[in-house]
Amino acid sequence: MNRRNFLSKAGISAAAVAAVTTVNAPAVIAQKKFRWKMVTTWPPKLPVFQEGCERLAKRIGELSDGRLTIQVFAGGELVPPLESFEAVSSGTVEAGSGAAYYWAGKEAATQWFAAVPFGLNAQGMAAWFHGGDGLKLWEETYAPFNLVPRPSGSTGVQMGGWFNKKIETIDDYKGIKMRIPGLGGKVVSKAGGTVVLLPGGEIFTSLERGVIDATEWVGPLHDLRMGFYQAAKYYYYPGWHEPGTYLDYFFNKHSYESLPKDLQHIIDAACMENEQWALAQFDAQNGAALQTLINKHKVEMIKFPDTVLSALRKLAEEVLEEEAAKSPMAKKVNESFKKFQKVVGSWGSISEQAYYNSIVPKA
Amino acid sequence: MNRRNFLSKAGISAAAVAAVTTVNAPAVIAQKKFRWKMVTTWPPKLPVFQEGCERLAKRIGELSDGRLTIQVFAGGELVPPLESFEAVSSGTVEAGSGAAYYWAGKEAATQWFAAVPFGLNAQGMAAWFHGGDGLKLWEETYAPFNLVPRPSGSTGVQMGGWFNKKIETIDDYKGIKMRIPGLGGKVVSKAGGTVVLLPGGEIFTSLERGVIDATEWVGPLHDLRMGFYQAAKYYYYPGWHEPGTYLDYFFNKHSYESLPKDLQHIIDAACMENEQWALAQFDAQNGAALQTLINKHKVEMIKFPDTVLSALRKLAEEVLEEEAAKSPMAKKVNESFKKFQKVVGSWGSISEQAYYNSIVPKA
Repeated sequence: MNRRNFLSKAGISAAAVAAVTTVNAPAVIAQKKFRWKMVTTWPPKLPVFQEGCERLAKRIGELSDGRLTIQVFAGGELVPPLESFEAVSSGTVEAGSGAAYYWAGKEAATQWFAAVPFGLNAQGMAAWFHGGDGLKLWEETYAPFNLVPRPSGSTGVQMGGWFNKKIETIDDYKGIKMRIPGLGGKVVSKAGGTVVLLPGGEIFTSLERGVIDATEWVGPLHDLRMGFYQAAKYYYYPGWHEPGTYLDYFFNKHSYESLPKDLQHIIDAACMENEQWALAQFDAQNGAALQTLINKHKVEMIKFPDTVLSALRKLAEEVLEEEAAKSPMAKKVNESFKKFQKVVGSWGSISEQAYYNSIVPKA
Repeated sequence: MNRRNFLSKAGISAAAVAAVTTVNAPAVIAQKKFRWKMVTTWPPKLPVFQEGCERLAKRIGELSDGRLTIQVFAGGELVPPLESFEAVSSGTVEAGSGAAYYWAGKEAATQWFAAVPFGLNAQGMAAWFHGGDGLKLWEETYAPFNLVPRPSGSTGVQMGGWFNKKIETIDDYKGIKMRIPGLGGKVVSKAGGTVVLLPGGEIFTSLERGVIDATEWVGPLHDLRMGFYQAAKYYYYPGWHEPGTYLDYFFNKHSYESLPKDLQHIIDAACMENEQWALAQFDAQNGAALQTLINKHKVEMIKFPDTVLSALRKLAEEVLEEEAAKSPMAKKVNESFKKFQKVVGSWGSISEQAYYNSIVPKA
């Protein structure tokens, strides 16, 4: 992209450029103003998800003292939610947000950067990104699409979902109609279930009318808002299919690289700050929502039986190998992920796992 | 503090001020340069700890495009390690780093912001700080000392320590000589142990010669460097006494508040970015170091028996109530912490705990 195109795309007004050209050269650079747009995949006002994007934009404005401002559009406001990747890739807008598994159709490798059934949890994913080669591989995966990815934060371990049929053995999945997208859906399908894809707005009614027997969503905070406790009997845990789902930010590579270095750093810092912020919100607010679900709405919490989890885990390994065979990049990412999980998992087992079990021995 | 004092203390050179006064007013503010000093409590080059402080300084320089630079001094280079709090409080230097429990002698409440035996882990502490009232209470606790605190990152769950005597019942603590500072030390003391305080450099020899029977330190990464596997037989887990130790940054309140708003935001963002970075380093590097300890040095890992953990937990509750009685602020902080742990802990139990147990069922 040449500079003139960039200036125009970046939304720098001619007046702003003119106003600063009277100052000396370094000051000109310092005073350039960039006005960007971000298109997300989230509904307006969705707590933590869309809220995090708006928080990011605000922080970038504050950190840059107004030199880089980002106007945030919820899914559908400017482009349809799942077209945000394409819109940023092509340079129509400069920034976007979603979750990397949304882009599995573009490149199978993207899925490992969002959620892997029985894979890394939030802490493990962060370690892979920032202490391993996770982020480097993510950048390599998005580069052909002219995008720079940044982790935006994790939901933490999700819930297993809302069920109207009990899951006591792996065979109980046979014939079950469940709304569960992505790799988790492939696992349920392998177990004999019928995977149904439904937009968010149709899930409650489908569950209430028996069109589906089960659905997964996020965690207590978001599930409470959806009112699922009014349409399903059992609330299962843990969310083996999404143990630490990471959301993503992505920036048009030319736009990002054309920024002065300090503004690139500001984007990076604000994204990483958002990672820390987002998980804290999920943890704090899920805790409070869980109390409401249990104490006020008398929701019955059920843990998936260990035998079911073991069976699902075997199926998940098959699914991952099948997905990894879909592209050279997916193969490479899967190898890195597996190797990292083995090492970091052995540490997690004697640190976090032993800690949790020392607080609530039988849970 | 008046403006002239501030300019002098902040290390703004007269030339720098003069150079920019020819530009219009907002530009003057934008061009001011601040040169700060940070004094830490850590030895030079200590991985993640001192490394994190140097990383922070570098990031603040990058984010501010050189407008705020911080020169970092390891413990003892400018002031003795444990005088850094006082040095920043008095305004001798602008910034410092340590862990809040180092300042328990100033105010008992500080301890809750670092590590509470059987308290919150890294994820829980982050949720309390950024999704609860933890950081607000921390600011309230440091304000009388003219300091602004910022969380600097967590070590994650630490290890239980190196022992030359086996701990099979709570009675095995009777007469044991252990190097274990802080609240954990008070618990061991209540269990009948003799708590020994030793500087880092003397621990190995004391353990090797039998002057002490046991010591705790940090986790695999740092323990490996100390060579403890050559001086002790058993490596116990989990680190019940420090389940998610947070390190701290603190800034002279007048210096911080005298900065332009965008530089204050830059400090905040860089600190929060460091939180995300630090835990990722501990997790990734502890995992690798653990493999070395087990496979190369044939270290024997032992989990504290559940009955011992339960007994220690009861003693820890007594210690916390005693500490909380030491000041009104400690009482207030303890109440907030307990209440938050109850809510966030119930969520952690069905999310993270159930996740870990689904990956390694018996660990």
